[in-house]
Amino acid sequence: MTDQQNPTALDLPQVDPLPPATQKYFDICQDKLGMVPNVLRAHAFDIEKLNTFTALYNDLMLGDSNLSKLEREMIAVVVSSYNRCFYCLAAHGAAVRQLSGDPRLGEMLVMNYRVAPLDARQRAMLDFALQLTRASAEVEEADRQALRDVGFSDRDIWDIANVAAFFNMTNRVASGTAMVPNDDYHAQYR
Amino acid sequence: MTDQQNPTALDLPQVDPLPPATQKYFDICQDKLGMVPNVLRAHAFDIEKLNTFTALYNDLMLGDSNLSKLEREMIAVVVSSYNRCFYCLAAHGAAVRQLSGDPRLGEMLVMNYRVAPLDARQRAMLDFALQLTRASAEVEEADRQALRDVGFSDRDIWDIANVAAFFNMTNRVASGTAMVPNDDYHAQYR
Amino acid sequence: MTDQQNPTALDLPQVDPLPPATQKYFDICQDKLGMVPNVLRAHAFDIEKLNTFTALYNDLMLGDSNLSKLEREMIAVVVSSYNRCFYCLAAHGAAVRQLSGDPRLGEMLVMNYRVAPLDARQRAMLDFALQLTRASAEVEEADRQALRDVGFSDRDIWDIANVAAFFNMTNRVASGTAMVPNDDYHAQYR
Amino acid sequence: MTDQQNPTALDLPQVDPLPPATQKYFDICQDKLGMVPNVLRAHAFDIEKLNTFTALYNDLMLGDSNLSKLEREMIAVVVSSYNRCFYCLAAHGAAVRQLSGDPRLGEMLVMNYRVAPLDARQRAMLDFALQLTRASAEVEEADRQALRDVGFSDRDIWDIANVAAFFNMTNRVASGTAMVPNDDYHAQYR
Amino acid sequence: MTDQQNPTALDLPQVDPLPPATQKYFDICQDKLGMVPNVLRAHAFDIEKLNTFTALYNDLMLGDSNLSKLEREMIAVVVSSYNRCFYCLAAHGAAVRQLSGDPRLGEMLVMNYRVAPLDARQRAMLDFALQLTRASAEVEEADRQALRDVGFSDRDIWDIANVAAFFNMTNRVASGTAMVPNDDYHAQYR
Amino acid sequence: MTDQQNPTALDLPQVDPLPPATQKYFDICQDKLGMVPNVLRAHAFDIEKLNTFTALYNDLMLGDSNLSKLEREMIAVVVSSYNRCFYCLAAHGAAVRQLSGDPRLGEMLVMNYRVAPLDARQRAMLDFALQLTRASAEVEEADRQALRDVGFSDRDIWDIANVAAFFNMTNRVASGTAMVPNDDYHAQYR
Repeated sequence: MTDQQNPTALDLPQVDPLPPATQKYFDICQDKLGMVPNVLRAHAFDIEKLNTFTALYNDLMLGDSNLSKLEREMIAVVVSSYNRCFYCLAAHGAAVRQLSGDPRLGEMLVMNYRVAPLDARQRAMLDFALQLTRASAEVEEADRQALRDVGFSDRDIWDIANVAAFFNMTNRVASGTAMVPNDDYHAQYR
Repeated sequence: MTDQQNPTALDLPQVDPLPPATQKYFDICQDKLGMVPNVLRAHAFDIEKLNTFTALYNDLMLGDSNLSKLEREMIAVVVSSYNRCFYCLAAHGAAVRQLSGDPRLGEMLVMNYRVAPLDARQRAMLDFALQLTRASAEVEEADRQALRDVGFSDRDIWDIANVAAFFNMTNRVASGTAMVPNDDYHAQYR
Repeated sequence: MTDQQNPTALDLPQVDPLPPATQKYFDICQDKLGMVPNVLRAHAFDIEKLNTFTALYNDLMLGDSNLSKLEREMIAVVVSSYNRCFYCLAAHGAAVRQLSGDPRLGEMLVMNYRVAPLDARQRAMLDFALQLTRASAEVEEADRQALRDVGFSDRDIWDIANVAAFFNMTNRVASGTAMVPNDDYHAQYR
Repeated sequence: MTDQQNPTALDLPQVDPLPPATQKYFDICQDKLGMVPNVLRAHAFDIEKLNTFTALYNDLMLGDSNLSKLEREMIAVVVSSYNRCFYCLAAHGAAVRQLSGDPRLGEMLVMNYRVAPLDARQRAMLDFALQLTRASAEVEEADRQALRDVGFSDRDIWDIANVAAFFNMTNRVASGTAMVPNDDYHAQYR
Repeated sequence: MTDQQNPTALDLPQVDPLPPATQKYFDICQDKLGMVPNVLRAHAFDIEKLNTFTALYNDLMLGDSNLSKLEREMIAVVVSSYNRCFYCLAAHGAAVRQLSGDPRLGEMLVMNYRVAPLDARQRAMLDFALQLTRASAEVEEADRQALRDVGFSDRDIWDIANVAAFFNMTNRVASGTAMVPNDDYHAQYR
Repeated sequence: MTDQQNPTALDLPQVDPLPPATQKYFDICQDKLGMVPNVLRAHAFDIEKLNTFTALYNDLMLGDSNLSKLEREMIAVVVSSYNRCFYCLAAHGAAVRQLSGDPRLGEMLVMNYRVAPLDARQRAMLDFALQLTRASAEVEEADRQALRDVGFSDRDIWDIANVAAFFNMTNRVASGTAMVPNDDYHAQYR
């Protein structure tokens, strides 16, 4: 599998040539990450879809939040582990290894986050993300209060819920289209 | 519950005053729908979040697609039924009633879509949406092929997967924050 | 779908003519409800079966009990929501809307009863009904005690258990035979 | 545990003295079965409830049907096994052993009916009963047709569905009230 | 079904003649138990496999432990009940009846251990065995501590976990190969 | 975490000094693997338990079989992925990477084996292992026949079932005791 292969099982060729702004964005990815993530290539059959996806992604994962970027990636991995999404586990597992500098933590979150030695705040955050993933209809005020009790604000709860919800979307897009992660992720930050 | 009440259980007040473009958008909603949907009010504590959400929503639900707007709403309701999301069932159940002119169809999709007298194409579409909701890791090429076999293109499969995935996100945002639907939905198009 | 159509997917024609007592009962239904509920028409291929069913139904739902008729209908809807029974949700959802005068309550119970603003007593009642529906083997003395703790007597516990159990029966009869609810239910009491 | 003990965990004493007709019925049970089944004693706090229950039970399990009495008991055991109902497995497991003269069959149905060497007709009957028990909302016309394909009539399908549904009720009444089976069942027909 | 029949659905004939040590072991079984358990006959196509299996079985079920032999059999039955393993329920249900002298206890553990009148220590032991069977990834330190709180040592926890785990293995070997229990078990110790 | 730390959450110190044969075995592990696997250290509080465990392990995973050693490790990983066992995924994920020379395959099996490009024979093998793990009571002759249809012999079916069953045991021992994998596994063969 190389980056030039089809990033999904669907026959949806990339716009060719890419609009200049998109080409520039992909070039920056190539420079900074050493690859254009396949999720971007997969959306590039329709630039509007690519742009709405990246705008939401960037706001949630890179925008202002009291949750650290690592914590947002931890949520991504725990949600993707429950949903067993190959793409998201490969990509965001690498991100947890990179941002934490702790490859063992990345493996724990991919395999079973309950074995990770987390503080009460991060554990509550991941428990909430899992509950929202597994049985969102059963979330009640007591579950939100449990987050407040370990120090999260209502804005933080919004962020936790939205990051967890976002990966419940992307896991399904990836699995529904057989999206393959770039090979480079597997060996990174081990 | 009036529209002036807090649209979620979180204390995240709306930006006040709203930026002119947002105020104009809300005014248009009020004029055309008779309400500002609470999901918009809920996001309006942060205009960037509101904008990225509405851009994605509008692209998926109102943009170009071979799926009719009704079909996209049907997917929304079936996904939300599996996830038992009060907000999305109220809002999108009303949309199915409106767009189909068939209140009984709306009720069937809210309660158990398997009882609805659908053609093979729409049934396959909803079966795929359900599978993606319930066990996305188990979706395989045979499931995509089943969609092609009833006439869907690869682009259509992208759209079905993305609409189903989107409501797996919004269901969790709504349930995670206890978002309440506008009361008006309940009696509409009965 | 009209009342003259087959109320189930089974070819089991109604006794013709109906015995006078049955005809009189159906006439009363028509007068008071504006319809003969399809569940009665479905049983009328065998008058003994119709009579044993209605005797049990009437004792449980209309007989003496400390549970109000609304509370019994609330149990019916919560059980039927878990089991996703189209017939029972349509018929008893309408009953909740009628008896409560609160269409929104009816919708909440159909969609996800956890979002309804119930007092502790009614919430405990519905939680017990759900547990009995979902995992009856796991009910233990602590669960009965939880009902006593919010004021229910042992007789009330019998009634809650029996109403919940009854709809676990009727949901399966209805779904097993593809019983269709009378169309009139959908628009009632909105 | 003797027959004189409370048949459930609820404090609902039997009517005393029993009405003559009820006493006579219980005396017949004692003569013919060597016991008054605890399910009857449990209902006898309210004679109307006892009567509606026994009328339905007798119609379904002892009335006219193309299903043999053994087949109806087989359904009872398979449903009760899925629901793990101690009362119904003890009582109806004994009935299967009695009516079949095959203690091993009784054990197989209690433990895992899939290991029993059944013909295609009885296997289809039990598969339908299980599906109705486990996921009634998923029953569709193809499932009914599978019963017709092995020789069942629409009336037979009604009977299978209703017997399976009935034990989904009684399992929940028994587990919800901690109903205990008469001790005699355990050693019978081994 | 006689003991001379194939003990599984696989065509794996017993080594013939058996090595003297194996023949002697089988002769002892026949003398003491009145049968050679089919699980031994099933493994006897490969004497090394038979020996490694019996060594582990004997160490866990008959070796030194603070858990009584009855308690280890109780764990075996509760695990096998969850997994619905016909072989293990028949064989170890008989063992519980034998070692406890309480046929009703054996039936309760086969059908639903929650109805058995156990002390807190044995109940905690079985709850842990069930949790390990049903959702081993969710076991955490609090679950082990709950065992310590009712008096179990860390060595006891090892034994509970290993006995429960062992039957999660044997249940799957038995169900995977359609292993049939010796008929004699069904009537023993009733 | 170093190899000198407690390999589980239980206070069960290793026999000290180890018997010469055990010490020699551990020395060989250290020489050949660069570590003594923690699962061996965990059992070493009781040499008989260590020996029965290793005898079974070595027979199943290293003994004669038509399944290659890689295929047995693939089963180990797929079972452990379903059960989300951190220890076994770390250790046997590394083994798949080593034996296959394909780190991506190891990741796929850890995360979701359905995305791996397997031939029909290996896919059927893993599907059977998963079914046995998830719902062993539902395995029937048709499932065994499906293995024969892709070329497996009855002996192979025994081996697949026993390897899958074995990891259902070890996953539960590991999760039940909070067994931690040696750190070295995480970076091996990437």
